[in-house]
Amino acid sequence: MRFELLATDGAARAGRLTTAHGALDTPVFMPVGTSGSVKSLSPDDLREAGAEIVLANTYHLLARPGHDLIRELGGLHRFMGWDGALLTDSGGFQVWSLAKLRTITDEGVEFRSPLDGAMRFLSPELAIEAQQALGADIIHPLDECLAYPATREAAERSLDLTLRWAARSKVAHAGGGGHQALFGIVQGGADDELRRRAAHETVALGFDGYAIGGMAVGEPKPAMYALTALVAGLLPADRPRYLMGVGKPEDLVEAVARGVDMFDCVLPTRNARNGQCFTWDGPVTLKQARWTRDPAPLDPECPCYACRRFSRAYLRHLFMAEELLAYRLLSLHNIHFFVALMRAMRAAITQSAFGAFKARFFARYAVSSVDVSAD
Amino acid sequence: MRFELLATDGAARAGRLTTAHGALDTPVFMPVGTSGSVKSLSPDDLREAGAEIVLANTYHLLARPGHDLIRELGGLHRFMGWDGALLTDSGGFQVWSLAKLRTITDEGVEFRSPLDGAMRFLSPELAIEAQQALGADIIHPLDECLAYPATREAAERSLDLTLRWAARSKVAHAGGGGHQALFGIVQGGADDELRRRAAHETVALGFDGYAIGGMAVGEPKPAMYALTALVAGLLPADRPRYLMGVGKPEDLVEAVARGVDMFDCVLPTRNARNGQCFTWDGPVTLKQARWTRDPAPLDPECPCYACRRFSRAYLRHLFMAEELLAYRLLSLHNIHFFVALMRAMRAAITQSAFGAFKARFFARYAVSSVDVSAD
Repeated sequence: MRFELLATDGAARAGRLTTAHGALDTPVFMPVGTSGSVKSLSPDDLREAGAEIVLANTYHLLARPGHDLIRELGGLHRFMGWDGALLTDSGGFQVWSLAKLRTITDEGVEFRSPLDGAMRFLSPELAIEAQQALGADIIHPLDECLAYPATREAAERSLDLTLRWAARSKVAHAGGGGHQALFGIVQGGADDELRRRAAHETVALGFDGYAIGGMAVGEPKPAMYALTALVAGLLPADRPRYLMGVGKPEDLVEAVARGVDMFDCVLPTRNARNGQCFTWDGPVTLKQARWTRDPAPLDPECPCYACRRFSRAYLRHLFMAEELLAYRLLSLHNIHFFVALMRAMRAAITQSAFGAFKARFFARYAVSSVDVSAD
Repeated sequence: MRFELLATDGAARAGRLTTAHGALDTPVFMPVGTSGSVKSLSPDDLREAGAEIVLANTYHLLARPGHDLIRELGGLHRFMGWDGALLTDSGGFQVWSLAKLRTITDEGVEFRSPLDGAMRFLSPELAIEAQQALGADIIHPLDECLAYPATREAAERSLDLTLRWAARSKVAHAGGGGHQALFGIVQGGADDELRRRAAHETVALGFDGYAIGGMAVGEPKPAMYALTALVAGLLPADRPRYLMGVGKPEDLVEAVARGVDMFDCVLPTRNARNGQCFTWDGPVTLKQARWTRDPAPLDPECPCYACRRFSRAYLRHLFMAEELLAYRLLSLHNIHFFVALMRAMRAAITQSAFGAFKARFFARYAVSSVDVSAD
């Protein structure tokens, strides 16, 4: 993997990341293909939307269909029919957010799988092995995602564990050889000092890129932005920076302004399934009766299939009738929008006009107070 | 609308139907777009699968979003983004199969809508008016679908009503002018004599084509085939014949052999959503564990996107994980198969080789005993 920094504008960066499955421009948004499928979209839909890299969740794929099966069938790229770049997380976040009966020891984490009720065990070494079986271009060490809020003591203990696991993951990864880039994950909770220590010690271990983890877990937005700026400022300029699980369009703009290069979030696809579509004027909630007879496209500026071919009235009808086509068309549109937003930010950075872009974005984009994120 | 009979082979017919939205070759299968969407498929998916005509249900569209709204937005073709041919039924079958608290009088039928609990009324005139608002290329008169089994007395009373409604529908349709073809529906239950009378009297009224209704409602398969042959033999050769709601691939072959030109059924899309895929060797049920590690495509002979790009193992994984993409890919494949089956039958009829085709089809096609039709 190679990363070139092409332009900066304040803290904002435009770069180019070359992986074993193609090059992509940063800042970049990665659609989430949890179980080896970005919900409701085909690989061709993703390509058409301009996506160049997709994230898949090791935790979900381990549980079903299993990493051995995917290895046997030629790896995740081939299994899911996606020849672009792939990134996998380590499973740590899902163990934390989804599994029951977690027991964390220095060795690893034991948890009950919500899928079949079986007890499973994940260690740094097993997480690397599973990700090697999947074969993504970018993989991650097992980490502990700290709950918010946490005591200083709990935060320190958790960070120490994540750092020890990071070191073991590096060793395990080195043994596997090959084309997979390994990112380090900077944890440390909502504490400035711990975040600083996390950044320094993770960078000292030496990774191909750096993820900022444990964000958007309940802390106030200003804290998230400040911590992001703090950590990004401590990371080496010549490595890509990835803010995990973030976020809303406004968060992407704020985080790019603070030096982040890569993002992933289920928001565009999950909210699509709840009838929310993103536009440059803010989200459109199709549940609202005001769209019932609207012959206009969702977003007249958008070149996606949903906007080129259908009216808001029809899309609302599909959504209200719980037609499966609604989920696909709205997901397709939302991924288009997220990709277009990143593209616009890249262009602005390249032209040293990111500040003006950001001001224009917020002048127009009406942040929604409608919460449709429950799935 | 124009219908040309191009070739016959025994009772089997190959023809060409020219509508206000394009010409199509018969025998033809019409995917069902119940609420203005063939479940999980876009208009482009349907085109790619080779579909040339789609059916929509007046009953469902009346309830949601309403025919007035669709008229206001330019008609159903425009509303759903489908510029091919469209056929609507009258709503009679759904009132019979879905609505509660039906009261049928000579005037029409009053029923409670399952959608909102409101009492609604449908008459022959209202059914024509609604279908004129929708603007399909082929429309139908309101009819009564007789339950099976029925007493001779009930069957006669029902047929008389359907015939009186057919006459009123013809008058209502004549008042609306225009490009819409009106088909008559031949009812009569499972009684040969009543079916004969139904055919004669419906033909005497004079329609652009003839639908055979009240089939596949519980009668034994041999009875359905025999009644189809009987009715088809009484219909004018120069008008298209449409067997409503049928059916499985083996039924399509048997009915084409008996002189039917047009078919519709939810089977390819509904069974896709239940993990069943049609192939020339018979249905493949993805729920079965035998496909877990199968790297082969669903059907190596099929040119559809699902077969070109994915393994059975991946499609099974998507289905088991309840991924929305499964429903689309399997629906796309099944529509491809049904279209290919009709195309193969047309070719065989044109080459006077339908008998040999039918023998080959049944020698290879393993009729499934696995019932996945529950939705």
